[in-house]
Amino acid sequence: MKLLTCSFRWLTSLFLVVAFQAQSQNMQAYTFPSSEVVSIHSKLLNEERKMYVHRPKVDSADGNKRFPVIYVLDGDNHFALLAQYVDYLSRPDVLAMPETIVVGIPNTKRTRDLTPTNSLLNYEGKPDGSSYAGSGGNEKFLQFIQTELMPMVDKNYKTGPYKIFAGHSFGGLSVLNCLLTHPDLFDAYVSISPSLWWDKEYLLRMTDETLKNGAALDKIFFYSDGNEGGNNSFFHKNLLQLDATIAKKKLKGFDYLYKHYPTETHMTEPVVAYFDALRFIFKDWEKSR
Amino acid sequence: MKLLTCSFRWLTSLFLVVAFQAQSQNMQAYTFPSSEVVSIHSKLLNEERKMYVHRPKVDSADGNKRFPVIYVLDGDNHFALLAQYVDYLSRPDVLAMPETIVVGIPNTKRTRDLTPTNSLLNYEGKPDGSSYAGSGGNEKFLQFIQTELMPMVDKNYKTGPYKIFAGHSFGGLSVLNCLLTHPDLFDAYVSISPSLWWDKEYLLRMTDETLKNGAALDKIFFYSDGNEGGNNSFFHKNLLQLDATIAKKKLKGFDYLYKHYPTETHMTEPVVAYFDALRFIFKDWEKSR
Repeated sequence: MKLLTCSFRWLTSLFLVVAFQAQSQNMQAYTFPSSEVVSIHSKLLNEERKMYVHRPKVDSADGNKRFPVIYVLDGDNHFALLAQYVDYLSRPDVLAMPETIVVGIPNTKRTRDLTPTNSLLNYEGKPDGSSYAGSGGNEKFLQFIQTELMPMVDKNYKTGPYKIFAGHSFGGLSVLNCLLTHPDLFDAYVSISPSLWWDKEYLLRMTDETLKNGAALDKIFFYSDGNEGGNNSFFHKNLLQLDATIAKKKLKGFDYLYKHYPTETHMTEPVVAYFDALRFIFKDWEKSR
Repeated sequence: MKLLTCSFRWLTSLFLVVAFQAQSQNMQAYTFPSSEVVSIHSKLLNEERKMYVHRPKVDSADGNKRFPVIYVLDGDNHFALLAQYVDYLSRPDVLAMPETIVVGIPNTKRTRDLTPTNSLLNYEGKPDGSSYAGSGGNEKFLQFIQTELMPMVDKNYKTGPYKIFAGHSFGGLSVLNCLLTHPDLFDAYVSISPSLWWDKEYLLRMTDETLKNGAALDKIFFYSDGNEGGNNSFFHKNLLQLDATIAKKKLKGFDYLYKHYPTETHMTEPVVAYFDALRFIFKDWEKSR
């Protein structure tokens, strides 16, 4: 795996100091959280991939400090929001969660990577070959995360053992698929409005088949939906069914929360759902400090 | 008023292009929303002030487009969050609100600027001269916003007529004080956990005295509290009283919403409350497009 990385924080800082000192002593740059883009050549996917990484400011007095990591799908849509939440909620005057590394994974072929089966059926069950050709690559994509992306992140950043996987829509589908097929990959799973309609509700069936009654599953799982066609929509019915399936399994150690946001759309829901998910995952963090 | 401003978007872009082309064709910078810091000399306050400005990317095909403006207090705490919300919620695939300029006002002397009266009493009604000496400058601070800051923003940015004022804690107190004393300054007011305990609940009394039964007040008002000592806390009781006072006035055209967040602290509440406030303010925006 080829790794090209560059921390441009100091370069940017240097540049801004020079540029603004030239203008005025009163001028400062407004600096948003420093983040970087890393390119990877994935052998598994046989393509160049990018990831966005936001990391906490490291206190020089505690250079060995390690941080939890959030991996978020649809990186172009959600990385900046999660970086902002992490920065805000981990501030010393807020202290609702630890400082955390955020890794955003932008898409190349979204449908290929984020769907668990090869299917050409749309949400109404009708064939749509133009939209869904090449679907079903999620297992390979999860292997990319496990065997190429994660080792690279762990090698280059101050990662601790605690890892979170978060996604929305097809991304939410991937998160649930990962929980069912690679439960050891992450400690907490956040599935916002997963597209459970995929392939005749394949993952709903898999959830029921995979999770054994009374089994131990020491994980955190947050899942949600918005107003995606009202209370009678297939989206909401599917989420209610997922919630009922999970409840009846009575899994040991499984800490789960389903939230429904009737006033949010499919696209506004992630803003509040990611926040609620972080609050849920780290609800006992303050006590344990 | 002296104005020093510099849009460093193109400078930064140029720099990054040069820096990263030198490293690799595969490398890109992760760019957060471009924002700038502007220094102002305020004659009224007799001091240098800063403001943070985040502005939408202007479509060259519609160079005359004008944007609403959000002014947010405690700029160091809340500007970046609001800039992120505005960018996310105004995206073409989300469209929950219009593209909006965000102006963050960081503090110099917070207690002086954000309290409506000179008082040395803490939230328990006990004297605390070391914390509250010099309080009571909010009227002068609002005049600074009206006569120095706003004209400068309107002169230098593509502002439309719609203006929002948002604040938290003492900032929320300032927002309510502005609504009562300068209601024409803004179109929408967001008061998150206002410190209504200030000076023996001065603003609760002022609210009751100032708002006349059945009067016209064509404004939007969002106010909220978190879990700040439980349901019997003075914070929650004060917010309930504010809500009851507003309800009994039966103001014409006044569009208000009170939200209570029992699972949020004083410091985590703004994350979800600012989001809910934007959703409330722009609830009819999509229909009116």
